[in-house]
Amino acid sequence: MKCDIKDIHIADKGRLRIQWAAQDMPVLNLLKGRYGAYKPLKDINIAACMHVTTETANLVETLKIAGANVVLCASNPLSTQDDVAASIVRDMEIPVYAIRGENSDIYYRHIFDALESEPHITMDDGADLLTTLHKDFDLSKVLGGTEETTTGVIRLRAMEEEDALKYPVIAVNDADTKHLFDNRYGTGQSTIDGIIRATNRLLAGSIFVVCGYGWCGKGIAMRAKGLGARVIITEIDPIKALEAVMDGFEVMTIREASRIGDFFCTVTGNINVIDMGEFSNMKNGAMVANSGHFNVELNLEALEKMTKFKRVIRDNNVEYTLKTGIKINILGEGRLINLASAEGHPSAVMDMSFANQVMAAIYLVNNHHTLMKKVYRMPIELDKEIAKLKLDAMEIDIDELTEEQEHYLNNWEHGT
Amino acid sequence: MKCDIKDIHIADKGRLRIQWAAQDMPVLNLLKGRYGAYKPLKDINIAACMHVTTETANLVETLKIAGANVVLCASNPLSTQDDVAASIVRDMEIPVYAIRGENSDIYYRHIFDALESEPHITMDDGADLLTTLHKDFDLSKVLGGTEETTTGVIRLRAMEEEDALKYPVIAVNDADTKHLFDNRYGTGQSTIDGIIRATNRLLAGSIFVVCGYGWCGKGIAMRAKGLGARVIITEIDPIKALEAVMDGFEVMTIREASRIGDFFCTVTGNINVIDMGEFSNMKNGAMVANSGHFNVELNLEALEKMTKFKRVIRDNNVEYTLKTGIKINILGEGRLINLASAEGHPSAVMDMSFANQVMAAIYLVNNHHTLMKKVYRMPIELDKEIAKLKLDAMEIDIDELTEEQEHYLNNWEHGT
Amino acid sequence: MKCDIKDIHIADKGRLRIQWAAQDMPVLNLLKGRYGAYKPLKDINIAACMHVTTETANLVETLKIAGANVVLCASNPLSTQDDVAASIVRDMEIPVYAIRGENSDIYYRHIFDALESEPHITMDDGADLLTTLHKDFDLSKVLGGTEETTTGVIRLRAMEEEDALKYPVIAVNDADTKHLFDNRYGTGQSTIDGIIRATNRLLAGSIFVVCGYGWCGKGIAMRAKGLGARVIITEIDPIKALEAVMDGFEVMTIREASRIGDFFCTVTGNINVIDMGEFSNMKNGAMVANSGHFNVELNLEALEKMTKFKRVIRDNNVEYTLKTGIKINILGEGRLINLASAEGHPSAVMDMSFANQVMAAIYLVNNHHTLMKKVYRMPIELDKEIAKLKLDAMEIDIDELTEEQEHYLNNWEHGT
Amino acid sequence: MKCDIKDIHIADKGRLRIQWAAQDMPVLNLLKGRYGAYKPLKDINIAACMHVTTETANLVETLKIAGANVVLCASNPLSTQDDVAASIVRDMEIPVYAIRGENSDIYYRHIFDALESEPHITMDDGADLLTTLHKDFDLSKVLGGTEETTTGVIRLRAMEEEDALKYPVIAVNDADTKHLFDNRYGTGQSTIDGIIRATNRLLAGSIFVVCGYGWCGKGIAMRAKGLGARVIITEIDPIKALEAVMDGFEVMTIREASRIGDFFCTVTGNINVIDMGEFSNMKNGAMVANSGHFNVELNLEALEKMTKFKRVIRDNNVEYTLKTGIKINILGEGRLINLASAEGHPSAVMDMSFANQVMAAIYLVNNHHTLMKKVYRMPIELDKEIAKLKLDAMEIDIDELTEEQEHYLNNWEHGT
Repeated sequence: MKCDIKDIHIADKGRLRIQWAAQDMPVLNLLKGRYGAYKPLKDINIAACMHVTTETANLVETLKIAGANVVLCASNPLSTQDDVAASIVRDMEIPVYAIRGENSDIYYRHIFDALESEPHITMDDGADLLTTLHKDFDLSKVLGGTEETTTGVIRLRAMEEEDALKYPVIAVNDADTKHLFDNRYGTGQSTIDGIIRATNRLLAGSIFVVCGYGWCGKGIAMRAKGLGARVIITEIDPIKALEAVMDGFEVMTIREASRIGDFFCTVTGNINVIDMGEFSNMKNGAMVANSGHFNVELNLEALEKMTKFKRVIRDNNVEYTLKTGIKINILGEGRLINLASAEGHPSAVMDMSFANQVMAAIYLVNNHHTLMKKVYRMPIELDKEIAKLKLDAMEIDIDELTEEQEHYLNNWEHGT
Repeated sequence: MKCDIKDIHIADKGRLRIQWAAQDMPVLNLLKGRYGAYKPLKDINIAACMHVTTETANLVETLKIAGANVVLCASNPLSTQDDVAASIVRDMEIPVYAIRGENSDIYYRHIFDALESEPHITMDDGADLLTTLHKDFDLSKVLGGTEETTTGVIRLRAMEEEDALKYPVIAVNDADTKHLFDNRYGTGQSTIDGIIRATNRLLAGSIFVVCGYGWCGKGIAMRAKGLGARVIITEIDPIKALEAVMDGFEVMTIREASRIGDFFCTVTGNINVIDMGEFSNMKNGAMVANSGHFNVELNLEALEKMTKFKRVIRDNNVEYTLKTGIKINILGEGRLINLASAEGHPSAVMDMSFANQVMAAIYLVNNHHTLMKKVYRMPIELDKEIAKLKLDAMEIDIDELTEEQEHYLNNWEHGT
Repeated sequence: MKCDIKDIHIADKGRLRIQWAAQDMPVLNLLKGRYGAYKPLKDINIAACMHVTTETANLVETLKIAGANVVLCASNPLSTQDDVAASIVRDMEIPVYAIRGENSDIYYRHIFDALESEPHITMDDGADLLTTLHKDFDLSKVLGGTEETTTGVIRLRAMEEEDALKYPVIAVNDADTKHLFDNRYGTGQSTIDGIIRATNRLLAGSIFVVCGYGWCGKGIAMRAKGLGARVIITEIDPIKALEAVMDGFEVMTIREASRIGDFFCTVTGNINVIDMGEFSNMKNGAMVANSGHFNVELNLEALEKMTKFKRVIRDNNVEYTLKTGIKINILGEGRLINLASAEGHPSAVMDMSFANQVMAAIYLVNNHHTLMKKVYRMPIELDKEIAKLKLDAMEIDIDELTEEQEHYLNNWEHGT
Repeated sequence: MKCDIKDIHIADKGRLRIQWAAQDMPVLNLLKGRYGAYKPLKDINIAACMHVTTETANLVETLKIAGANVVLCASNPLSTQDDVAASIVRDMEIPVYAIRGENSDIYYRHIFDALESEPHITMDDGADLLTTLHKDFDLSKVLGGTEETTTGVIRLRAMEEEDALKYPVIAVNDADTKHLFDNRYGTGQSTIDGIIRATNRLLAGSIFVVCGYGWCGKGIAMRAKGLGARVIITEIDPIKALEAVMDGFEVMTIREASRIGDFFCTVTGNINVIDMGEFSNMKNGAMVANSGHFNVELNLEALEKMTKFKRVIRDNNVEYTLKTGIKINILGEGRLINLASAEGHPSAVMDMSFANQVMAAIYLVNNHHTLMKKVYRMPIELDKEIAKLKLDAMEIDIDELTEEQEHYLNNWEHGT
């Protein structure tokens, strides 16, 4: 089988960890049973460009069980778990192109490798696969695609706007069971986890600056506060900024915040959010991470120019000594800190995100002929079904509308 | 001047309280200045059916300053602040039809009184004015309406669905600067305030059941938790239920929760959420309130049938002794507890909600000819402007996109 | 019966409210049953100088049921609930000397009135009764006293230091079941309650300055944060200040904090904590309250001198317009805001505090001959018994040591 | 130099990590400067039995700079960081006896090795060094000792009770700047860190059972809640149990909690807190850790007997498949999870704990002739000084008493 991974011999450890993840992915397990029976993805080629983690392993296994031919490549050069890649290849017999720490050239070569499979469906985590496919490949066989992230959806909507999008895409990210959970609780916990592993610093009593108060930013802020930090938010959207104020956080410009923060974490989807001016302001010992999709949120080039000396002081932690003598620590090379320095989102949230991926793929197969070259929301009924399956797995019962209530809600004439 | 209020002689106290509210409504104050200059609502008749509170007084004053002829009637029989009604009549010379504690007949007579003004624009808080107008009045002069609440918007969408809606309505409730703030922070604090005033019970260590996890329910749950209660959520929507679980709350059916709660608060927009079965389960001393728009959320008729004796044990607190001997306390007669037993939302959130009302009215005047008989969202630019004005008033600076960033966000080709 | 209260005719309302309180005081109810049987306080005269609230009514009733002859006077001129005073006199036949709003002369005359009863035991809330007794009365019959507050205990320890204390006193305040609960959860909730009733301002997004981070200050800070405020702490003790930092709060000097706070609440037990320099710094609209025992924490004399005009803008809220034009609002005249503008601590915490009072009185009767003229801690066994009774009333089971565990804890030889 | 470590060649990594820790230990750095000048520990032999971590490296370096001859051995077989041990030996020239994963025999042999140095002062973390010294060595040269942990202090007080303690010991643990910070914020964060590293499970929405609500338990509960878990507390002390209730947690017996928990963490200082009965109750996939000093809190022997199969499923995570088919995961072999699976307390809290150690050692040298064979509290002035130094390092200013205030506090005659 074609593939490009680091070392097939570490598959055992990967397999155990994949099993561990599976134990906290009840919805995906249920779908394995359901779709294994009637193979709704039979003969469908799927190219998936995702973080190669234990949860993704369970996703691609589910897709295969549902009948698909799957290939997998990395959606980030630093996020691949090599033991997991090995087990996917060896134990699931699914081709993988991903090596942790691969450079940008190899990263894109791997995307090309994956696209050689002539996919009917693309699965993206940041839209690199889709955009590469749009630039350099024949699109005639493609039925549709899915996109996992806020960042990817922003790119796709820009493409749609310019009529550059050539097939329908389901914005899995916009499913409630994805972005309300994965982006908030998943990113929240795992980002903090990555920062703590890279620093072992106490958050209690520290000043923690979160750039961006979208769902991810809300999650990180909530967790930093939950660990005792004094949290500062920076934003460009006045509504989100005001929400942060009302949530009890301080809000100020990043320029102002850069003078006082101990920790910084960007999660904006934008470029150069922490730039030369901010680095110049920072206190000695400031720790800077990014949890946005791309590592462009920190202007590391600018930082390099300001630096006279740098060294790796801990795993995933590079100390830059500036010409001024001030030391700044960049965590995980500015890449997604939860994947670079921790293990990505916990399985429990990826369970729902990936149940959306599976259902979205089947939905595309069944409905592609009625869909336009647009970005679509995940159908709300599927979204709610996933939530219900998750609650069932947790043995949590909720209320159902009585007939009387259903009638009441549909009747506008009752008043005070 | 025609009006129907309790007592004009208590206007002095009302005026002071209206001034007090004005001090925390900087956006509305700014609009008074802006629109006082060029009178965009000149010769427009506005009939407003709102809670007659100190903040509403500032709203109707702003509308009048902007040129409108305003009349005001109550949107709830129990929420009128009589001293405020008196001051609106005496000091602002605006007709008011509202008496705290009016019965249902007088309530609707007051709505009729307000509609005699032949409004061009209706402002609603629960849609009673609009629905009455639709049933019994000539609609030919009406340009459009606005609606303040979730409950009202649900009614209006049901009307739109059935083609029963006869003019365009701006769903002020759906503006981010309204529902993200007023429904969450406003309802959160003021509901708890109402419950504490009616009971003086300690929340720390108590079990507090919130029925409904929409924005209002989220606000109440957040505050009950913030005061040390163990919070239980009941829901019918699996996505919201799951969100509650992830937020650290217990989720169960209301039937189950009714066995263990010390406090209950409904905020669902639905009927008979706490019904005979729930009342039967309750512990001795259980305290039950409603913070949803209508008092139908509690089935008080059913409770009456189960009761052998009742008495007012404190202001806004009626003790029902059931035939079983169990005592249950109903707070504020099951009406909106934050208005019945406290003073409604704090001025700071109403500031934004009512800035939306003013801007929505002007928007209707300027754009009614292009609008259809539908429910419209508040235009996002106005929504953001209000947030920006509020931040300015709080002296909080936020970031602006650089050119480079603006360009980056609009460009889908950059990748990893 | 001798007494001095406002109006005996309002006793009905007081009686209902006392019953309401009783329903959430299960430990005291249990002691009524236990001690009613064998009257351990038979023929003991008790003079109690306490806030005359519904909970205190239940305390004095319990003491009477246990056999004591009780008289009650107010421990604060502004905290008396007149309807409760009336019901204590009429329904319990206990003399009360307390009128809400009494001036300082009458306040001390009432203390003298109470001391005419020739008490064997004094019960204090701030030590005014004991210190008056020490100055002007014969002490020969006194067996001992109890003290409810931090402030009172500080005064008593100062007396003990100078050998000025003439009989043993049980520092009820220092019982864990008192200060860990009443001072933290009770003061926390009721102080915020008082501030909200006096202002109806939104706490979310506001800046709330708490002066003092003792148990009361911790409680207030926790609740202000729980309601969404950004909380700033001022302290003189470096350990407490550091604790506040680690709890995620900002810590700065009161001088610095006075520039930015929206709300201020002192709870230090000290004098002139907010003084002329702080008032000069404040923002327009700043709201200032005290929740410490005495109203000396705010230097209102200094404020008066800076003021050109003042008016009552709401109940318990006086607006001072300074000569600079800045407006500052003083809540509840600077007196204990939870009693001045709300109803004092909820019954659930007073239940434990007052169970300590009852047990302390009985302990003094039984053990006074072995006690010295000192301040004593509440015996730990009684303290734990109260906690256990409370848990039982809440139907909460806890673990008990196994024999093996008991043995393990007493054996120092086991190691790694 | 005599020593027993794993590998001297990994010292480079250890040195970097020690430097990293030093950057967040400003108080210890300041003491290095202060005591380096006049060597108050000159010619004093100190045997320290501590977790061999980067922070401890900074402690022993400070002691050496202050003049002492130091030897170091491990206080837990699983907590040694081998690279740090190597750097202490190579770069500080301090003998170390510690190898991660050493068995019990070697663990005690290392303690004997350390005691060969004939210490004047012992430093303990759990009292293993002191108790071994008491059993098998000549005590004539010993001036005194220090103890870092709650567990150790309990053992020492049991010895004092039995007159078995043969020299004075300063209970560093009981210093406010130690237990209020290290036990709460340090244990809180690092325990959660250890559990997340061993599981990568989502805490949000999970049920997290904390056994014990002392300072450590409070810290863990606070952080688990801060990460979105529903937290259940088990206790044997009714006062602490009630505190947990009032803090909004559920309290129940461990037997009851064992049926519903997803995570369990013991921190009681007691034996067999989770025993056969509890393991039998657990849900499939339950994760069990200990953060108390000794690994006796979990009855792993009992668990072994119930098990038919076990395997290492992840680092520091052993999956036990019971005969019933249920799987239970034991994290970090039941040893201190924050050291076994994470890196121990963050430097910022150890900074204060170890400043106490240094000051306590000097205090013993200066005052040993006046001390008895007892357990002493850390002198409060030193305690406060450490807090002040820490605040200074964080650039946080606090208030100082005015003369007027000082006078007020010392005067008991002022009243209402």
